[in-house]
Amino acid sequence: MSKTVLMLHGINHNMFGKRDPLQYGTATLEDIDQALQNLGQQLGVGIESFQTNCEGAMCERIHQGFVDQVDAVLINAGAWTHYSYGIRDALAVLTVPIVEIHMSNIHAREAFRHHSVFAEIVQGQICGFGVDSYLLGLRAAVGKMHLL
Amino acid sequence: MSKTVLMLHGINHNMFGKRDPLQYGTATLEDIDQALQNLGQQLGVGIESFQTNCEGAMCERIHQGFVDQVDAVLINAGAWTHYSYGIRDALAVLTVPIVEIHMSNIHAREAFRHHSVFAEIVQGQICGFGVDSYLLGLRAAVGKMHLL
Amino acid sequence: MSKTVLMLHGINHNMFGKRDPLQYGTATLEDIDQALQNLGQQLGVGIESFQTNCEGAMCERIHQGFVDQVDAVLINAGAWTHYSYGIRDALAVLTVPIVEIHMSNIHAREAFRHHSVFAEIVQGQICGFGVDSYLLGLRAAVGKMHLL
Amino acid sequence: MSKTVLMLHGINHNMFGKRDPLQYGTATLEDIDQALQNLGQQLGVGIESFQTNCEGAMCERIHQGFVDQVDAVLINAGAWTHYSYGIRDALAVLTVPIVEIHMSNIHAREAFRHHSVFAEIVQGQICGFGVDSYLLGLRAAVGKMHLL
Amino acid sequence: MSKTVLMLHGINHNMFGKRDPLQYGTATLEDIDQALQNLGQQLGVGIESFQTNCEGAMCERIHQGFVDQVDAVLINAGAWTHYSYGIRDALAVLTVPIVEIHMSNIHAREAFRHHSVFAEIVQGQICGFGVDSYLLGLRAAVGKMHLL
Amino acid sequence: MSKTVLMLHGINHNMFGKRDPLQYGTATLEDIDQALQNLGQQLGVGIESFQTNCEGAMCERIHQGFVDQVDAVLINAGAWTHYSYGIRDALAVLTVPIVEIHMSNIHAREAFRHHSVFAEIVQGQICGFGVDSYLLGLRAAVGKMHLL
Amino acid sequence: MSKTVLMLHGINHNMFGKRDPLQYGTATLEDIDQALQNLGQQLGVGIESFQTNCEGAMCERIHQGFVDQVDAVLINAGAWTHYSYGIRDALAVLTVPIVEIHMSNIHAREAFRHHSVFAEIVQGQICGFGVDSYLLGLRAAVGKMHLL
Amino acid sequence: MSKTVLMLHGINHNMFGKRDPLQYGTATLEDIDQALQNLGQQLGVGIESFQTNCEGAMCERIHQGFVDQVDAVLINAGAWTHYSYGIRDALAVLTVPIVEIHMSNIHAREAFRHHSVFAEIVQGQICGFGVDSYLLGLRAAVGKMHLL
Amino acid sequence: MSKTVLMLHGINHNMFGKRDPLQYGTATLEDIDQALQNLGQQLGVGIESFQTNCEGAMCERIHQGFVDQVDAVLINAGAWTHYSYGIRDALAVLTVPIVEIHMSNIHAREAFRHHSVFAEIVQGQICGFGVDSYLLGLRAAVGKMHLL
Amino acid sequence: MSKTVLMLHGINHNMFGKRDPLQYGTATLEDIDQALQNLGQQLGVGIESFQTNCEGAMCERIHQGFVDQVDAVLINAGAWTHYSYGIRDALAVLTVPIVEIHMSNIHAREAFRHHSVFAEIVQGQICGFGVDSYLLGLRAAVGKMHLL
Amino acid sequence: MSKTVLMLHGINHNMFGKRDPLQYGTATLEDIDQALQNLGQQLGVGIESFQTNCEGAMCERIHQGFVDQVDAVLINAGAWTHYSYGIRDALAVLTVPIVEIHMSNIHAREAFRHHSVFAEIVQGQICGFGVDSYLLGLRAAVGKMHLL
Amino acid sequence: MSKTVLMLHGINHNMFGKRDPLQYGTATLEDIDQALQNLGQQLGVGIESFQTNCEGAMCERIHQGFVDQVDAVLINAGAWTHYSYGIRDALAVLTVPIVEIHMSNIHAREAFRHHSVFAEIVQGQICGFGVDSYLLGLRAAVGKMHLL
Repeated sequence: MSKTVLMLHGINHNMFGKRDPLQYGTATLEDIDQALQNLGQQLGVGIESFQTNCEGAMCERIHQGFVDQVDAVLINAGAWTHYSYGIRDALAVLTVPIVEIHMSNIHAREAFRHHSVFAEIVQGQICGFGVDSYLLGLRAAVGKMHLL
Repeated sequence: MSKTVLMLHGINHNMFGKRDPLQYGTATLEDIDQALQNLGQQLGVGIESFQTNCEGAMCERIHQGFVDQVDAVLINAGAWTHYSYGIRDALAVLTVPIVEIHMSNIHAREAFRHHSVFAEIVQGQICGFGVDSYLLGLRAAVGKMHLL
Repeated sequence: MSKTVLMLHGINHNMFGKRDPLQYGTATLEDIDQALQNLGQQLGVGIESFQTNCEGAMCERIHQGFVDQVDAVLINAGAWTHYSYGIRDALAVLTVPIVEIHMSNIHAREAFRHHSVFAEIVQGQICGFGVDSYLLGLRAAVGKMHLL
Repeated sequence: MSKTVLMLHGINHNMFGKRDPLQYGTATLEDIDQALQNLGQQLGVGIESFQTNCEGAMCERIHQGFVDQVDAVLINAGAWTHYSYGIRDALAVLTVPIVEIHMSNIHAREAFRHHSVFAEIVQGQICGFGVDSYLLGLRAAVGKMHLL
Repeated sequence: MSKTVLMLHGINHNMFGKRDPLQYGTATLEDIDQALQNLGQQLGVGIESFQTNCEGAMCERIHQGFVDQVDAVLINAGAWTHYSYGIRDALAVLTVPIVEIHMSNIHAREAFRHHSVFAEIVQGQICGFGVDSYLLGLRAAVGKMHLL
Repeated sequence: MSKTVLMLHGINHNMFGKRDPLQYGTATLEDIDQALQNLGQQLGVGIESFQTNCEGAMCERIHQGFVDQVDAVLINAGAWTHYSYGIRDALAVLTVPIVEIHMSNIHAREAFRHHSVFAEIVQGQICGFGVDSYLLGLRAAVGKMHLL
Repeated sequence: MSKTVLMLHGINHNMFGKRDPLQYGTATLEDIDQALQNLGQQLGVGIESFQTNCEGAMCERIHQGFVDQVDAVLINAGAWTHYSYGIRDALAVLTVPIVEIHMSNIHAREAFRHHSVFAEIVQGQICGFGVDSYLLGLRAAVGKMHLL
Repeated sequence: MSKTVLMLHGINHNMFGKRDPLQYGTATLEDIDQALQNLGQQLGVGIESFQTNCEGAMCERIHQGFVDQVDAVLINAGAWTHYSYGIRDALAVLTVPIVEIHMSNIHAREAFRHHSVFAEIVQGQICGFGVDSYLLGLRAAVGKMHLL
Repeated sequence: MSKTVLMLHGINHNMFGKRDPLQYGTATLEDIDQALQNLGQQLGVGIESFQTNCEGAMCERIHQGFVDQVDAVLINAGAWTHYSYGIRDALAVLTVPIVEIHMSNIHAREAFRHHSVFAEIVQGQICGFGVDSYLLGLRAAVGKMHLL
Repeated sequence: MSKTVLMLHGINHNMFGKRDPLQYGTATLEDIDQALQNLGQQLGVGIESFQTNCEGAMCERIHQGFVDQVDAVLINAGAWTHYSYGIRDALAVLTVPIVEIHMSNIHAREAFRHHSVFAEIVQGQICGFGVDSYLLGLRAAVGKMHLL
Repeated sequence: MSKTVLMLHGINHNMFGKRDPLQYGTATLEDIDQALQNLGQQLGVGIESFQTNCEGAMCERIHQGFVDQVDAVLINAGAWTHYSYGIRDALAVLTVPIVEIHMSNIHAREAFRHHSVFAEIVQGQICGFGVDSYLLGLRAAVGKMHLL
Repeated sequence: MSKTVLMLHGINHNMFGKRDPLQYGTATLEDIDQALQNLGQQLGVGIESFQTNCEGAMCERIHQGFVDQVDAVLINAGAWTHYSYGIRDALAVLTVPIVEIHMSNIHAREAFRHHSVFAEIVQGQICGFGVDSYLLGLRAAVGKMHLL
């Protein structure tokens, strides 16, 4: 049976491609999801994508992923990364690999972006490579899934 | 006329009994609510329970409790305890006793869990006794209601 | 063509006029919106008002304002002012003047209210004048719109 | 054989009922101990009470409780809560449930009272309910004793 | 009898219009005072303006305002805002509304400019709107004067 | 009826005159008490002196002073000044003037000596004048007693 | 030849008796100086008093005291106590006893008032006794002058 | 002409495969380099590897990479990541993409490992995926090289 | 005449051998004292041992050691190490070598145990070697005594 | 036309040569100015010197230097260096090289002297060389003037 | 087969006996090594000594000790103690007892010397006894070796 | 006999003239050394220059300078300035004047560059004047040498 990776897009990310092209490039969320689908096909895993601007909906999608027994989670939670202990606790329910993704290098931006409240919960972090961060994250997740 | 206590369950608590059994035991939210109902009956107060993963819905339920003139509030806000000044401000609208509840001893866990943003708003705090924290909280609330 | 100013009311502000009359006066949100409409008419700008207790809905309303090309934004985000980096990032999408408003003087209240996470994103801040803060904010926004 | 709960009253608590009636009510230490005895009888446990203003005597009473194999400990250490690492280390000798009690909500008072040096050693904390804090603490301890 | 508003211009502000035109615009102190006079006439209040680079002279002008029973005070203290507890204590003598004004958004500049030592003494703060900050401040003061 | 001032000598102060003559002079505790007696006679108040190295005994002596209704308290608590919240809480029971005394200027010594945990409880502080600190403290207490 | 004590009154202190009677009593600066004169006469020392609101004038008066070889200095610098390193450096020129005086107990007020930048330079500090603080300070200074 | 990626292995990394197998797996540095070679061949880039335990030698190798005009740099500096501003300054000479790599999730380990002194200099960071971190890093670097 | 070393055992240390055998081994205080006696005999010094759980008694024993002119002091103050400035000041009376001893490596335990308030008063510190810490401490003290 | 360098002497510096000869040597301000004149003549620049103890006068002298178009500024602001943001803002008006001078090595003195509030405004800093600091500063300023 | 203890001498320690005789005595590194050899012979262990000023060489010597299976390590890393996480990580490879040694009492010197980055890695610490620190350290190591 | 000044060039400084020309100008290390030679000749002192990227080699060169009895030291340690306590301790061996040099104004750059770990060891600091910093440093050193 095929493996499934859950891609979680956080707050404001529905605006990708519509703002700050200098920092984030011009890719929309749909472009990113398509790129993930393509690479997923190549790596033999299915991708489920979800975006929300509501913390509660994000938590409930994670709960559903727990129930569905997804095989790995990719998450770019955007600004929530820095204060949503609620999403942290939702992620902590999972026992599969979680990969934290950021398009920009959060460690080189404003001080409040240096700290991720998910750090102790996730397998690892990839940041700074724009859309490539997602694709690298998918590869990282698939690499860890094979160990389980 | 009978008194009413509003029990507020916070973010991710719909997952109780499904995760971390070592830390939280195996009781589900329904088990907890049933135990509260039983004790409420014994103490002569009605219990209304509410769970949400959405901060806004939590605030609005508190506003409704203000309109309904509930007699006391029990709240285990989960991770929101540590950052939701929004829920704090909603609670501050109330003038009835509020009891802050935690299953685990938050002062003995990660540093970010040591501080409650509700502290200055609530009557008191009970933490560390698992499901018993809820029952003790109900007794505490009833004890304070009699003073009003 | 007429200019439009988007007024954003944050978390718990639907309760205005129903709590803390000593600190906030007795005006309801409707009173505030009416006063803004009146002044807007006088200044030749239209006002659109929006209130929500849901962070996600607030972000999406800001995104919509971006799409609608509103001419300025007034925001009193309430408690979110102090922790919602999500709303900050939503506001950062905009390139029109944003005016941060508070009824009370946040710099003279609890320490957690001294810092606004929106500071680097907004044109300026007006706080401490009750309902007048809103009217002054509208004048400030209109003043800045003329420069664009 | 009957179970025994050791109630430890800390520094200055012999003055209860003689000072600050607004904050602590008018109950004396004897009143509190009597209320505990009554509830203990109802719950089927014996209560031993001890008060001292001397840190060394408190430690030695805890040592004696270890030797006597008491079944649980309730402690309201008063101001020692915030600096006596000596009492902390004494408590750490015990392997039975320890419940930390405060009449007032310590998290809503002066900053130095927010931190308990016992936090990592105790089962849980109950604060803010006046004399009821003791009775709730006894119930909490009895609840935990049944698990051992 | 007509009301009087005292406008206090702080350290280095005699240089307005002569430096940093990008940040402050090109208005001189005379321009600002003239604009205030015009608006004051419209609002039915008299304006007295005072500028000094000497902390002691500023304090003494405030003392004089106390003796003269001015009806409100506008103050843009410039860099003194961040360290002159002396001027703070002088302002604390007054019992009329005080409005703190800044041309730039001090919360978005260097860290030392984020904190105002006057915060607990003033009615409110208006910052970030250039010369408009003064006019908005006058309106704010007049609004508060009517409440006295 | 004559007034009584309670002089409380703290930890290690029985060693005065036997150590650090460069810093504290050569006066013993008896010399200090005698000087206080002499000045007390001149000012028409009786002096009761007490020294202990035991925090609990100090608290109990303060409790006794409360029962005895002493008219003022002088305290040089020595090192306890910087950490004994227990003695702070004991002093808080009193409603008469309390004067905090130090022979050396504690604000010019090691950093840990700069902060007094009694500060919010006492009328005032006198430090840096050696034995004269005690005599000035007695005068200060007598001055405040006359206001009661 | 008679000894001279220089009394230095700091920023805003010309307003004594005209503001905050609850905190400072109703004595004016003239009353305080007269009381010092009276006590000085009794103790056999002359008093020279000086008040200024200008930091530079204060420094120059201290320089003059150095030239005049005053025998001791009393200083209540008001708000300057907490930030004027300039006055600190001026005082450091002196080699006679300097006594720091405050009417209120600065350690029990706002946090910024807890720290005196003069601490390492002065003989000692007396605070919290209203006008008596000055008289006690004069006694303290005279006591130290006799040792020189 | 073929592109070259410089792989820099930091302090103690010659011990890989010989220590902490639980945390780092059993791969040696040679294994890692071989895996990079293989992937490099597949991606069409050459890999040059360098390991040293001497900060100076690391800086000089970076200088040489600058002279050689390498096309990208991968660096896992080990413990130097957290304090070697010297290596930071060496890396700052380069204008090609630099990818920071860690086998473990440094944000979930001891506090001193949370901060990288290279953060402002590098393109991005990949941590937490063991040997895969290197391979992901190579892909990331190649992805960025194509943009130059 | 023979030399004497005073061994001071601090708070809770009467419980040695009865708790935490994993961390402290199984030696009782009597075992430790016997081992010190044996080594003392070998090194030609007498050992006097003292244990108390009362800070005041500890200070007074130190005072007595000062009167008795002991030749060196060994102290394992347990938890007092981290907050008893009272014992610090008592030790400061002594002019003989003082050796600070801990069975466990305090620098590798909870943060509050990293700092010793005795550090500036003692000759040196030995920690982490269980009972051997005492024997090494005795050797260290004897080594320093020979220099006096 | 000849170039002019403005030498600004700060608070208390009129006392040079009259205090602390161990730290500052015996040179008076006149000596320093003469040495600067001599070196200025040698380097072909004119020197204008100014000393004040009044922050406002210092600012106004800087404003005048701006109007006069001086070619460089040397400033030893003394204690103002550490808190006068007012002088900082005055200096920020200038666009010519500013050299910060201190006779002593401020980084090796009290902690409050380590930080200069002028740092971001000045070209560079020279400290620790006594009167030579001034002469080196003049050379530094002349060196930078030639680049303009 | 005989046991081996590796003695590691850190940065600048080749200068022992040539500098700061007041603080370190006059012993050279050779004297220390000789004293260790003598005591080692007495205790039945061989000593290997190594000094380097190069962090990389120190790490590599530790690696070699790992390969050679030394039985214990003594290390006085000098200034590296406070920042070389590289040496910390090298030491962490070892599973034999490591004893941290300092001639002076580092806890009584400059603040930066209070913290050892090796603390969590070593068995214990001995500081403050000059050359004796080494000999005590050897005894400590031998004592721990017997437990393995 | 001629005097000798030792010029120490720190980590990465061999790259001068090859990077960051905007910040550092285009001078190479050879240019700087030549300029120092020229000025040294004019001032009558010999210059020895040394550059290394290895901390250990830098320390050993300083040790050699101690042995050679150089008359003064100039040091621009680059990034080591901010963390190499090892070089600090090496410099502390010297008793001749040490001048700390930086091309850029380190106090106006990243926060980590504001603090020099050499501050308490050096005579003074010169920063911000590019190559001129070196020449001014040589003059400063020569000025101090004449005092010895």
